Amino acid sequence: MSTSRPWRAGAASFGDDMRDVTRWLERHREGAHTQRVWSECAPGDVLDALPTTVPTAPVSVTTALDDIDRWIVPGLVRWDAPGWFAWFPSNAQEHALLGDVLGAAMAQQGMLWISSPACTEVEIRMLEWLRQAMGLPDRFAEGGPGGGVIQDTASSAVLSCLVAARDRATDGLARDQGLHAAGPLTVYASDQTHSSVLKAASIAGIGRANVRAVQSTADGAMDVAALSDTIRADIESGCRPIFCCATVGSTASGAIDPVDTIATVCDDHSIWLHVDAAWAGTAALSARWRDVIIAGADLADSWCFNPHKWMGVNFDCSCLWVADRVPLIDAMSVTPEYLRNDPTDSGGVVDYRDWHVQLGRRFRALKLWMVLRCTGTQALADMVDHHVALASHLADEVNASTTWTLAAPVSLGLVCIRHVDGDDATQAGINAVNADGRFAVTHCKLHDQLVLRVAIGSLDVERSHIDALWGVLQG
Amino acid sequence: MSTSRPWRAGAASFGDDMRDVTRWLERHREGAHTQRVWSECAPGDVLDALPTTVPTAPVSVTTALDDIDRWIVPGLVRWDAPGWFAWFPSNAQEHALLGDVLGAAMAQQGMLWISSPACTEVEIRMLEWLRQAMGLPDRFAEGGPGGGVIQDTASSAVLSCLVAARDRATDGLARDQGLHAAGPLTVYASDQTHSSVLKAASIAGIGRANVRAVQSTADGAMDVAALSDTIRADIESGCRPIFCCATVGSTASGAIDPVDTIATVCDDHSIWLHVDAAWAGTAALSARWRDVIIAGADLADSWCFNPHKWMGVNFDCSCLWVADRVPLIDAMSVTPEYLRNDPTDSGGVVDYRDWHVQLGRRFRALKLWMVLRCTGTQALADMVDHHVALASHLADEVNASTTWTLAAPVSLGLVCIRHVDGDDATQAGINAVNADGRFAVTHCKLHDQLVLRVAIGSLDVERSHIDALWGVLQG
Repeated sequence: MSTSRPWRAGAASFGDDMRDVTRWLERHREGAHTQRVWSECAPGDVLDALPTTVPTAPVSVTTALDDIDRWIVPGLVRWDAPGWFAWFPSNAQEHALLGDVLGAAMAQQGMLWISSPACTEVEIRMLEWLRQAMGLPDRFAEGGPGGGVIQDTASSAVLSCLVAARDRATDGLARDQGLHAAGPLTVYASDQTHSSVLKAASIAGIGRANVRAVQSTADGAMDVAALSDTIRADIESGCRPIFCCATVGSTASGAIDPVDTIATVCDDHSIWLHVDAAWAGTAALSARWRDVIIAGADLADSWCFNPHKWMGVNFDCSCLWVADRVPLIDAMSVTPEYLRNDPTDSGGVVDYRDWHVQLGRRFRALKLWMVLRCTGTQALADMVDHHVALASHLADEVNASTTWTLAAPVSLGLVCIRHVDGDDATQAGINAVNADGRFAVTHCKLHDQLVLRVAIGSLDVERSHIDALWGVLQG
Repeated sequence: MSTSRPWRAGAASFGDDMRDVTRWLERHREGAHTQRVWSECAPGDVLDALPTTVPTAPVSVTTALDDIDRWIVPGLVRWDAPGWFAWFPSNAQEHALLGDVLGAAMAQQGMLWISSPACTEVEIRMLEWLRQAMGLPDRFAEGGPGGGVIQDTASSAVLSCLVAARDRATDGLARDQGLHAAGPLTVYASDQTHSSVLKAASIAGIGRANVRAVQSTADGAMDVAALSDTIRADIESGCRPIFCCATVGSTASGAIDPVDTIATVCDDHSIWLHVDAAWAGTAALSARWRDVIIAGADLADSWCFNPHKWMGVNFDCSCLWVADRVPLIDAMSVTPEYLRNDPTDSGGVVDYRDWHVQLGRRFRALKLWMVLRCTGTQALADMVDHHVALASHLADEVNASTTWTLAAPVSLGLVCIRHVDGDDATQAGINAVNADGRFAVTHCKLHDQLVLRVAIGSLDVERSHIDALWGVLQG
């Protein structure tokens, strides 16, 4: 077979190659506990190691794996290390991996219902399972006027919703004639909101200057009075407010906006309310945190969280629910002749290509299938509680210390600290932790002060790792 | 371990579970030759099979796999079947799968260079290897003012380039102040261009009405005189032409626009020229077709093709090259404090999050790594030639027949045919093929006539499958 069809050489040995890859992965996974967390590579080191010209003759899979060890592994950052406290967790939980492999190998293209009924309907149900497990409101339920969809990232999700809001507010004018025919539109988010809102407004033609960074209160949550004032001032000056992004778990400090009161303001002005719970959303799986996370969700037009952050599902997997799918589909649907088919024409099926930017789509719901079935929601809730307990433990150490202090209230698994001697000392702490090899931390600024963020969410993190981190900070 | 950390139960058995999944996949892959290609499920069948409520207690991986067989496999469409002739090929070549598994398990987040030097630099080099193998011009080379990036889909790639063009043409006004502050912008593509251009213009706030569907000539290629006339008329009426998408291999019939003459027109008006070779681009790996595919690429601002179509790489993997990365980065870059880092501030590294819509990104370059190294470019070129030869064989049969006729010139592996008795007879042929069980075909319209498309690109397709298809059409 390989003589006549050399491009199928890999098919003949697939099972054996997969077993080789599995052995490689079993070994590689141990490296999460031993390899330095940050790569020691300098810019260009990986490039220098790789062959400069495209190879013409094929090599064996085992050779390719050896080369990965030699050339690529040194350039990896161990996001899977127990000492990973940087940015936010982004794991590759094993059941998710199995689902990802299965989905990839099934080679489905879920753009239309007819192009993969399984990809479409498993996704519908997995979003419904998650909705139930997280206690999200009925307005997002399967079978209702809204529903759920897997987006690649929260950035794409907020862009999709912003465009839907833009087109709804302009009654299709922005979509059909373009924004030059509309007046200035304005978008609201707090000064702690993720940069994806600014990027989305930029992509959607609304303009970065028309994103209002509403001031936050001392704890980092949006000041709703300021939101209300800003909206009123914008309306008076001829702008049209269309979209507000509330954050449940801000990137810097995990601050949680008061979604319910924000919703009241949005409702007064027919503003689309989107909730970005990209990181914190997973905590709704735990009964202890559910009410905090989903507060106000029953008043939101759209609600998003990323299983590829805290929930352990490997990238990419961002879950978006909308209360009304019509404006989203109105914004995203373009149907040329070659995509027409009877089920679509009947209006009785979900064609997920109309729910986001992309046309093609991967069978990502199988990752959720494997995690929800084989790990289970109780175990995930236990994981959340474990991480929050570790954060609380670290906060206790900080509170008892004379050198470090909390820079913000602890939010779930996120602990923000600063050195009492100021930014230079905080930076020295960050440097010491990152130089140690076992840990990774990143920074933010709060109230103009440098902050060391400890984002606890590794699948393998234990109290010993927190204590070791604290040991380094104690110098 | 599983008692104290139930969310890690999957970690303990990962190797064994992967071997179970591998055995499942070995069996499942055989189904590509025996299972009906289109699913027989009606809307709701998969949903009806799945449990309605989220399970609380975990099940074993083998149970989850059994349930996939029972509930999910019937809803799969066998895009991997040798008789897959619908839309375009979308395969899951085995070496690509191995790379995908490796990349997923490494849990990298390639948003910044510092968040994964390996993810970033392997991607840079794989795009360079592909550029070399396809003969793409030096303007797209690694180390130059442009470069390559993996996008998820050609839809996202054209959106990214359109936004970059929009912001370049308005000197940042659209990005910063919004399009309401700019005059009407216009976009050009032929009436055969993929719907993603219309969708991108809609998302970017330019408006669908400002996308000019330039007429195509009898063979489906853009009429450059018409393009030139349309641009001139738009300028006279106060519009600002900013972007043109040329298609190399149209979705309907595989028509190839004259990129070089289009480029001359675009150059006269400083219009960004994007080339969409999503499907046909893979043919540049074959020396026989390279010149046809890359003609004019040295005059394009951006050039895109999807290895997840004809090249066999499993979804998603769309390669985009730009001649100048500055406008793309100017459009897409937003850097909040928490993403700042020394290598980024130095300007000496590539941060790929600034090259597309999303912030997070998967280690997709490993799929290309495995395919280019373990399958090799010669084998891929042989595959292209094989598919083109099969298309030629089918065309010979059609040309010798009195019932079917070519509806367009054969383009690479795509054969468009229609019945001489008209649309009803063509539809009957489409129905017969799709009812057979071994095949999938889809339709398009050319010159207002219904067309049966035979898109040959399955990894396993042989002359016998073409002959069997032709047998069904002979009725």
